[in-house]
Amino acid sequence: MTFIDKLASRWRRADSLLCVGLDPDPSRFPAHLRDRPDAIFAFCAAIADATAPYACAFKPQVAYFASARAEDQLESLIAHLRRHYPDIPVVLDAKRGDIGATAEHYAREAFERYGADAVTLSPYMGGDSIAPFMAYADRGLFVLCRTSNPGGDDLQMLDVGGERLYERLARLAAQRWNGSGQLGLVVGATYPAELARVRALVGDLPILVPGIGAQGGDVQASVLAGQTAGGTGMLINSSRAILYASTGEDFAEAAAGAAQRTRDEINRFRRR
Amino acid sequence: MTFIDKLASRWRRADSLLCVGLDPDPSRFPAHLRDRPDAIFAFCAAIADATAPYACAFKPQVAYFASARAEDQLESLIAHLRRHYPDIPVVLDAKRGDIGATAEHYAREAFERYGADAVTLSPYMGGDSIAPFMAYADRGLFVLCRTSNPGGDDLQMLDVGGERLYERLARLAAQRWNGSGQLGLVVGATYPAELARVRALVGDLPILVPGIGAQGGDVQASVLAGQTAGGTGMLINSSRAILYASTGEDFAEAAAGAAQRTRDEINRFRRR
Repeated sequence: MTFIDKLASRWRRADSLLCVGLDPDPSRFPAHLRDRPDAIFAFCAAIADATAPYACAFKPQVAYFASARAEDQLESLIAHLRRHYPDIPVVLDAKRGDIGATAEHYAREAFERYGADAVTLSPYMGGDSIAPFMAYADRGLFVLCRTSNPGGDDLQMLDVGGERLYERLARLAAQRWNGSGQLGLVVGATYPAELARVRALVGDLPILVPGIGAQGGDVQASVLAGQTAGGTGMLINSSRAILYASTGEDFAEAAAGAAQRTRDEINRFRRR
Repeated sequence: MTFIDKLASRWRRADSLLCVGLDPDPSRFPAHLRDRPDAIFAFCAAIADATAPYACAFKPQVAYFASARAEDQLESLIAHLRRHYPDIPVVLDAKRGDIGATAEHYAREAFERYGADAVTLSPYMGGDSIAPFMAYADRGLFVLCRTSNPGGDDLQMLDVGGERLYERLARLAAQRWNGSGQLGLVVGATYPAELARVRALVGDLPILVPGIGAQGGDVQASVLAGQTAGGTGMLINSSRAILYASTGEDFAEAAAGAAQRTRDEINRFRRR
């Protein structure tokens, strides 16, 4: 089963567009976990177990594991997700971007070592920095398009022959780069008008939308702007607002509550 | 001592602009090393020991370690380099690009975990994806500007108000983004005219130049295009042509020979 099929099936069966972002920061873990040698794994697995019923995808962010010398815990976490939730796709948020043999090694890291269903990529080096990841023909690729930070304007909003750079990127990615048919884009929630513009350019391609919750993006505006005609097409990510809904012993129940509320709020604005 | 000072000092003392790229591919290691559990470390350390007299910098590429579950060997390698060659800067080639807390974790990975002197970064997310790395005020940052692959044209050659995107990037990086004064750029050797254009835009900023050797870039044209008035300003990278100069037991001597010849060829075209 391809990534796109797995994702579409999960959207439907879980009735959810919520992506649970796993950005583990040990300084915010509940005290009873903090001193365990596998604290990062234990925290993320507990969050995943509690939020799985409400999630269309999980998105571990590799930087949080790399800074803590915890690649082994990331391996264990993704193995746990695949064993217990084989229907929920795992998007490795790594924003890799390189060419040739180096890109092949990054693809091997994401898809063989970690066994992720999809990976995020940075497009500055162009189409041949995306292609090596398509050797894994069933895996998904989310290419950065329009990001939710103020500095995103520096390049993405430049005028390139009558359109913005992020619009050109969306067209390139959807048309020329999507050889495997498993490509999606990353578009932040903080600019709903631009999310609507990308949706108009890329048909039903999946769009990963960070920036709701702690980053201030508006759920209603994002769903109205980004959904497909069928009311799906998005992975709306929330990380900190779910992970740290409580920092006490009830962190997992609190995360489940926050995930359920976010999924339900998203669903209020979906086409049915 | 800042990265820029350390690099300038090394350029002068080693009389070299050659950066030795450490992209370890175990399938190309000599047979007597291949089965060692620390083969990647042993290979790279032997290459470094043999080529150090001719190197202005070492550049380990993190993808090769990540695909092999060998982050521990990357730690050991950089520790080895810092212990034995404290005057030679280590550039971690990671092409990270993210924002906020995530970028802080990537900076911690590069500068605290690995102890690198500098890291390569991807600019698509803009100036605030560079800024968190400048919290380490003495460390260097090399931002992708014009890359040596054909697909680099997809975005980098777009016309943005009368200049190319890579030219805009060079100006942004040199002027607005360089808060710490430790910034450099990555410009491939395959386009000497564009390397000359970047040099004209950025003054004496260091430029990391991949693409000679296996990628076909021309040493003479690159040096003439990229050097500063003082005959320095470049880290001209060679990886495969040095690492795999021989795949027999004499691999380290062969690497030393290739490094010396490359340094000398570069030096033939430098201003003195």
